[in-house]
Amino acid sequence: MALIVQKYGGTSVGSIERIEAVAAKVAAVRDRGDQVVVVVSAMSGETNRLIALAQEISEFPSSREMDVLLSTGEQVTIALLSMALHKLGCPARSYTGGQVRILTDSAFSKARILDIDGAPVQADLDAGKVVVVAGFQGVNEAGNITTLGRGGSDTTAVAMAAALKADECQIFTDVDGVYTTDPRVEPKARKLDKITFEEMLEMASLGSKVLQIRAVEFAGKYNVPLRVLSSFEEGDGTLITFEEDDMEQAKISGIAFSRDEAKLTILGVPDQPGVAYSILGPVSGANIEVDMIVQNIAKDETTDFTFTVHRNDYHKALELLHETAEVVGAREVIGTENIVKISLVGVGMRSHAGIASKMFETLAQEGINIQMISTSEIKISVVVDQKYLELGVRALHDAFELSAPVS
Amino acid sequence: MALIVQKYGGTSVGSIERIEAVAAKVAAVRDRGDQVVVVVSAMSGETNRLIALAQEISEFPSSREMDVLLSTGEQVTIALLSMALHKLGCPARSYTGGQVRILTDSAFSKARILDIDGAPVQADLDAGKVVVVAGFQGVNEAGNITTLGRGGSDTTAVAMAAALKADECQIFTDVDGVYTTDPRVEPKARKLDKITFEEMLEMASLGSKVLQIRAVEFAGKYNVPLRVLSSFEEGDGTLITFEEDDMEQAKISGIAFSRDEAKLTILGVPDQPGVAYSILGPVSGANIEVDMIVQNIAKDETTDFTFTVHRNDYHKALELLHETAEVVGAREVIGTENIVKISLVGVGMRSHAGIASKMFETLAQEGINIQMISTSEIKISVVVDQKYLELGVRALHDAFELSAPVS
Repeated sequence: MALIVQKYGGTSVGSIERIEAVAAKVAAVRDRGDQVVVVVSAMSGETNRLIALAQEISEFPSSREMDVLLSTGEQVTIALLSMALHKLGCPARSYTGGQVRILTDSAFSKARILDIDGAPVQADLDAGKVVVVAGFQGVNEAGNITTLGRGGSDTTAVAMAAALKADECQIFTDVDGVYTTDPRVEPKARKLDKITFEEMLEMASLGSKVLQIRAVEFAGKYNVPLRVLSSFEEGDGTLITFEEDDMEQAKISGIAFSRDEAKLTILGVPDQPGVAYSILGPVSGANIEVDMIVQNIAKDETTDFTFTVHRNDYHKALELLHETAEVVGAREVIGTENIVKISLVGVGMRSHAGIASKMFETLAQEGINIQMISTSEIKISVVVDQKYLELGVRALHDAFELSAPVS
Repeated sequence: MALIVQKYGGTSVGSIERIEAVAAKVAAVRDRGDQVVVVVSAMSGETNRLIALAQEISEFPSSREMDVLLSTGEQVTIALLSMALHKLGCPARSYTGGQVRILTDSAFSKARILDIDGAPVQADLDAGKVVVVAGFQGVNEAGNITTLGRGGSDTTAVAMAAALKADECQIFTDVDGVYTTDPRVEPKARKLDKITFEEMLEMASLGSKVLQIRAVEFAGKYNVPLRVLSSFEEGDGTLITFEEDDMEQAKISGIAFSRDEAKLTILGVPDQPGVAYSILGPVSGANIEVDMIVQNIAKDETTDFTFTVHRNDYHKALELLHETAEVVGAREVIGTENIVKISLVGVGMRSHAGIASKMFETLAQEGINIQMISTSEIKISVVVDQKYLELGVRALHDAFELSAPVS
């Protein structure tokens, strides 16, 4: 007998018909003798409907009241899914975040889970019931309703799995696993059977939307085996694992990319100690996250300094940079939103030389100019003009033979 | 400084525009220096939408899960109303039933309030906040969400007023007060400035839909001054009071009626001790409530026995009565759904003779045959053919001069 935590997102419970399909899947797991906790999101569209109601009243509604409002979405789903399970003769009991007592801090709309009392849920499981838990929500010490932010249902599922020491946490979504790259860009992309936590973190942080990065971090921290699989199709999905042994052969696991980048450059900065801080200090002071940073070798006692930010922060960052340029006496500020970041990800990279050069060679052969480069232990990222996104991803996918089945 | 509990029903909070109008009314009360607790229902249509979702899954959904589902309706309203108050610069804080800790029994879908912890709410009021409470819902000892049944928001408001020892509980609705009779039947019906609790109970139980009878009972039990008034129009509404002093002049306060009645008669029952029990036992055993009961004088050692039930229970009651007829050896069973009950209500009736005879005379003059009569201390009810409803109500309204302003 295993204890499985399953999580179904908004699309998977987007209609009564789909809720009934989820109930059938859950009941089948219980029927084969396993214990099941199901974590669900709001029905697709519901959260947006509630946000629209609030926006009609106020552009900046109180975040405490916003959480009271939004948490109703999952509460509707847990009741309906429990009813659907009852209809199949499967005993089930719903829990709101407050009823499980998913204790969080008081950061309304982006609360972090501090503790979960697994005992009542475990008692229901031992009594043969399926437990249905509202994702995305919790309660703070004072009893206020909190939410974990968008995608928080994944985190709820992982946290429940950690608290209950579950054998596996299964995230059901509208894709059937983690792919070598986005199949909408490269149709030959191949589903991975396994991926390591480190790789998954890089994939997630680079814009692969399969799993929320917080959930992956959480699972890694608490050693929760995580599996991504499809709500709509049969299959084993992708297991996110700690083991790297049999992964040596596959040097590269996948190609991630992000269209949400913008690049800023300040030219002709006097090359003095502290120049990086004088440039990036105001940016991070405005709560703008800086991703890649490149400083050129000094020439004529001045230097050029380039960095990337999220595209949403581009205009604000540009404004700050112009102010900085005046202060430090730089020559010019330039910037562009027309860039993308493409990254090779793979733990095998650590022990294999030549990956980077092969990447650069492949891009050069296609006439793609590389604007920036950054590397980590398991990743190489390049910034290129956004018109080269598809061409670059497909060329790299071919060059690293990612379409081929694992030998 | 007064402490006022206000309750707004589903129509009054049926759109963002209306929620903002409620916020303006509430903020005005606070601005004049009073403390305000607002109890709200789900936005009109929302409860029916949720019920329809559940019905798609199951005709008889678990009542525990039904309460989890339905309680989201009011939770949405408390968040939105709090946001609308904030927008007006009015500090406000929402409470779900569980957060107030409206403790109920465990009768899901029709729970009764056992206790309310008023202390946290009082602390917020003393800190200058408006407190916004979800009506209709509570929580049982084990932390399960319960609901009080339809119309339960009135009961929540009265219970909050009792717990906080409020100066007045104001029920805002889509009518501007309690009328001498239904203005849709008698356009000359007049709004009452005051009515006693006893009268209001009779009016409510007889189908006057202004207030839920449970809320009136609750208010009477805990001495909560209750006022009914309009969400949409200015005015003082109708105060429901304990004082009867200045009411002596108005012998009759109003005319209530009910279209939801059905009449059953068992003819030629052997006149023996225990006959009433042998007839009504099976009926009440089937959870059917019997309203009026008339037994004729025995003749030829048999008697006729007539009673009324809610129209929904008519067919079941008729079936039971046929079975009883065979058992006790009665001659015949007859019944009809084509009846209505019309009632005169007024505490003045106690000290004034002649009310009943004037009622019968008025109906006779219009050619209306009276099928059954029952009386209480403050009420006389008659059953007549349903085609006479409007004629009878208007004739009595005229005869007892209810249109005239109170002298």
